[in-house]
Amino acid sequence: MTIGTLVLLRHGESVWNAKNLFTGWVDVDLTEKGEAEARRAGELLRSADVLPDVLHTSLQRRAIRTAELALDAADRHWIPVHRSWRLNERHYGALQGKDKKQTLQEYGEEQFMLWRRSYDIPPPPIDPADEFSQAGDPRYAAVPAPLAECLADVVDRALPYWYDAIVPDLLLGKTVLVAAHGNSLRALVKHLDNISATDIAGLNIPTGFPLRYELDEELRPVKSEYLDPAGAAQAAAAVANQGR
Amino acid sequence: MTIGTLVLLRHGESVWNAKNLFTGWVDVDLTEKGEAEARRAGELLRSADVLPDVLHTSLQRRAIRTAELALDAADRHWIPVHRSWRLNERHYGALQGKDKKQTLQEYGEEQFMLWRRSYDIPPPPIDPADEFSQAGDPRYAAVPAPLAECLADVVDRALPYWYDAIVPDLLLGKTVLVAAHGNSLRALVKHLDNISATDIAGLNIPTGFPLRYELDEELRPVKSEYLDPAGAAQAAAAVANQGR
Repeated sequence: MTIGTLVLLRHGESVWNAKNLFTGWVDVDLTEKGEAEARRAGELLRSADVLPDVLHTSLQRRAIRTAELALDAADRHWIPVHRSWRLNERHYGALQGKDKKQTLQEYGEEQFMLWRRSYDIPPPPIDPADEFSQAGDPRYAAVPAPLAECLADVVDRALPYWYDAIVPDLLLGKTVLVAAHGNSLRALVKHLDNISATDIAGLNIPTGFPLRYELDEELRPVKSEYLDPAGAAQAAAAVANQGR
Repeated sequence: MTIGTLVLLRHGESVWNAKNLFTGWVDVDLTEKGEAEARRAGELLRSADVLPDVLHTSLQRRAIRTAELALDAADRHWIPVHRSWRLNERHYGALQGKDKKQTLQEYGEEQFMLWRRSYDIPPPPIDPADEFSQAGDPRYAAVPAPLAECLADVVDRALPYWYDAIVPDLLLGKTVLVAAHGNSLRALVKHLDNISATDIAGLNIPTGFPLRYELDEELRPVKSEYLDPAGAAQAAAAVANQGR
């Protein structure tokens, strides 16, 4: 027997995705293409009749606006909303604001891929005085905000929200939309699909494609699929080649 | 001593405001002018340094989108959100979808003004089969949705939300944004300013102008003002003349 339906949605293309910069916790907006991706995600939800009952987002504009545009397109703009920094993108530390291609050239393939895809090696911490630091941002004043994170750190800070906020909604049989980021969603997928620290490096989540999980009573995936599998596979391949 | 700050914001111009139709619970969107009003409201919040800590909205697109656009402009898109049908516009019953000017001509000034501004005379109830009925709308499946409301009905259904959801936030000292509708906001203002059933008829709330209340510990207004008093006064006069 399946209980709730979980829908994971990575935000549409952001201004810094388009510029190929490390973004992390910098609060950039969507591009026009990203807005269109968000609306298309909403149309996929509507046409698949996967209608969210509740929304969980990060505290970041690109995920918040993606959810707003998608839910508006699906005529579900009125559902309850919950937000948490625990769904934020991985904090990219001192790399925030840096060009990915330039970083690759400057530090070499090995170091670049360690920062980008290693499970437990964080980039260097950001200086609180850095223009791309979140020091002083009121939304993080009362939370244990990181200065840099590896994916293992994201798993550690995202899972409390999974258990405390998302799982209770799923256990009520709800269709739950989580609008978040490449790495906070990889953290959830790693947990759900029980993916190893090694294998998670190969998993890429494309922007703007709803990924649906049907879960059993013990929150084990019975089935998972993108609502547009062919489009999602093509877009995931493009993510894997970023920085090249 | 003042405690919390309350900011009331009526949604920007809607498609049916522009067409001069009775809207009520019909879920119409903003016009481009309405979107611009919403962004301007956010800029007023930002420039007055009135930064909401929490948002309460109705379940209707025009209020939800107004809040989204205003908060994005004020860089407060990340605050917690709560929604309730109790903040919805007055249900206009069988008048929903009807032209205001035509209704005035058809029924005459007296009946028109009774429906529009009397405190306790509701319009005729809407037929559930009417194209502008909310029967079957999933967002109202579990609530005691009305078929028509007078302003007294709106006061009765809005005040439970005021006491149960908004007041607790104010008592914590928060700045609370309520993004709602002409009549649900008139209901709150009637309560806050202790306005009589007769005098409330003369109160008009313009679209897109943040109205700030400073409240004391017993939730009595110490001070209230529009963030743009001159602009708001001019716009309120225009509301009073609708249907002419």
